[in-house]
Amino acid sequence: MTPKIARFLAQHQPATPCLVLDVDRVEENFRALRNALPLARIYYAVKANPAPQILQRLVGLSSHFDAASIEEVTACLDAGARPEAISFGNTIKKVSAIRQAHERGVGLFAFDSREELEKLAAHAPGSRVYCRIRVENAGADWPLSRKFGTTIESAKELMTEAATLGLDPYGLSFHVGSQQTTTQAYEAAIGKVAMLFTDLTEAGVNLRMINLGGGFPTRYRDEVPGIDQFGNAIMRAMTEHFGNALPEMLVEPGRFIVGDAGLVAAEVVLVSRRDRNDPVRWVYLDIGRFGGLAETEGESIKYRITTPHDGTRMGPVAIAGPTCDGADILYEKTNYRLPLALKSGDRVELLSTGAYVSTYASTKFNGFAPLAEYYL
Amino acid sequence: MTPKIARFLAQHQPATPCLVLDVDRVEENFRALRNALPLARIYYAVKANPAPQILQRLVGLSSHFDAASIEEVTACLDAGARPEAISFGNTIKKVSAIRQAHERGVGLFAFDSREELEKLAAHAPGSRVYCRIRVENAGADWPLSRKFGTTIESAKELMTEAATLGLDPYGLSFHVGSQQTTTQAYEAAIGKVAMLFTDLTEAGVNLRMINLGGGFPTRYRDEVPGIDQFGNAIMRAMTEHFGNALPEMLVEPGRFIVGDAGLVAAEVVLVSRRDRNDPVRWVYLDIGRFGGLAETEGESIKYRITTPHDGTRMGPVAIAGPTCDGADILYEKTNYRLPLALKSGDRVELLSTGAYVSTYASTKFNGFAPLAEYYL
Repeated sequence: MTPKIARFLAQHQPATPCLVLDVDRVEENFRALRNALPLARIYYAVKANPAPQILQRLVGLSSHFDAASIEEVTACLDAGARPEAISFGNTIKKVSAIRQAHERGVGLFAFDSREELEKLAAHAPGSRVYCRIRVENAGADWPLSRKFGTTIESAKELMTEAATLGLDPYGLSFHVGSQQTTTQAYEAAIGKVAMLFTDLTEAGVNLRMINLGGGFPTRYRDEVPGIDQFGNAIMRAMTEHFGNALPEMLVEPGRFIVGDAGLVAAEVVLVSRRDRNDPVRWVYLDIGRFGGLAETEGESIKYRITTPHDGTRMGPVAIAGPTCDGADILYEKTNYRLPLALKSGDRVELLSTGAYVSTYASTKFNGFAPLAEYYL
Repeated sequence: MTPKIARFLAQHQPATPCLVLDVDRVEENFRALRNALPLARIYYAVKANPAPQILQRLVGLSSHFDAASIEEVTACLDAGARPEAISFGNTIKKVSAIRQAHERGVGLFAFDSREELEKLAAHAPGSRVYCRIRVENAGADWPLSRKFGTTIESAKELMTEAATLGLDPYGLSFHVGSQQTTTQAYEAAIGKVAMLFTDLTEAGVNLRMINLGGGFPTRYRDEVPGIDQFGNAIMRAMTEHFGNALPEMLVEPGRFIVGDAGLVAAEVVLVSRRDRNDPVRWVYLDIGRFGGLAETEGESIKYRITTPHDGTRMGPVAIAGPTCDGADILYEKTNYRLPLALKSGDRVELLSTGAYVSTYASTKFNGFAPLAEYYL
């Protein structure tokens, strides 16, 4: 928790659940990544948190932006981003979205299939395009691989055709999975994509760029490697494969930029035992999987939780949300322990929840309003 | 699809994704359940779909209401429900919510733990309360059991204390799980709860009610037993255990009342193959798990899908949503087949999506707005 957030919580005691985020920390994280990878252009993954306060701060830092939808393109433009600084990075786009983005000056698009390439050729002619390759997601707490990316063979064919279709075959991309905790994942993916890059270049395709995706982790319960370690590993792999002829490099961080900048303030609604002698207490919070904490699905992302009783005796707990939905359980199998003194009405904080929380919140599931948001 | 919905879609071609629901079908379902279980009072589970048009129609039919939050209590009152017709059925309630509901005249509350019972005694004194017992959820496609309900022993203790605390120990409840496809689940649960009911009555606790919960299924891909079969099985079990001294009976249907009254109109955004020879096509729709179809988690609820090419040659597909989230996959393991002619821009319908869709939709994940809703 940053001092600014601590002061805000103490002074305002805002109604819960709410997200409180320190925009200065966003800037610090952005600068840390820029220092760790000075040769890469940073495209902030807007989906991690599209708050105007964040986008405006990043525009001021000359960030680029990775948009998942025409609505996110618009949010970036509204925050002052130039269209040239925006990549439409979703490989699944409606024709109407492609056309609108193209009209507004966006000229960089992702794809991973023939149909999408043909849509881009028809509705965003002349644009720079990059093809997403499927790579291993081992080591990622929130993997992506089954849904996105194509094979080396298919990418080769499609990138070769792109110029014929009137598009600019600009580069290749991959994504090693979100909350990726190993640097090796990037090294292996770079090796795979570099071979294709060389093959295509030798075949006469004018490739200039490799998009390394995002996935850089935030610290939750467990330690993760620092951003410098990722920067070093990536540069080592790039140099190994490309020598001095480095292509342009893009990265698309989301979680790393905003994750540890925010926290969710919540309230304990109920503490119960199934039976008098059951050692496990069920702790029900006023936010759950459908109130924004969607990444606790499968207990994937394990948030740190602070309580007013920290330092006193602890016992095992299962932690759940406030809805009548049986799937609204945050942690039951993971070994969470919370103070025995915890009770209904206590305020708690879920740390490092600045990314992938506010936008996941349901509109009104069980009647509960989406969580409030404060940007400091 | 009802004729009214078909006419609306043909005339208006509404922008997708959207939910279109025929309120007359809601009324038909309500009447069918009332005929199948004439001795039970129907408490509509508002969380299934809290649209004012639905609540108002049900108020006109003298329905009762099961509310999951103070916001849902308010929605019922706004639709014209009397406070006496409302049960606050969530066993996890903030003190502020209990107090507000009590002030507005709600006098019936669920609980399943000591702490909640004490909160009710303090903030809704004199209210009728019922204790939720944990029962088997086998046979349910969307089970609930781990999160809710207490043991027979614990329920016995708490119900005995309720009167001492100034509350009215009105009854017992259970829930066999949502989309429950077997009538046996109700019979087994009734047997278990009836024993406790008798024990408590003999011990001098003035119990009068059994709340049978909800769970009655909607037809998705597979056939399900008709509502009359559930009614018959329930009455047989109740008579077996209580003879002529039947307690009051409550049911809390949600899905059964609104599920098949609505459909989601969606658009195909992309059809792609991972590789030229891959027989499986990936079909991406403009609605996915975070746009409202949350119950496809684990491929639990399997919606029927109609396309403009139905009747032509089919092939295997995986089906996913439009976001950049790797978890936004509807069906990959389930054997779905769709026409080979399906392509980007085609309009499709997901049938029987009137329940548990509109409210699950995220506020703006990946920038996508929640689905529009039309009530006919």
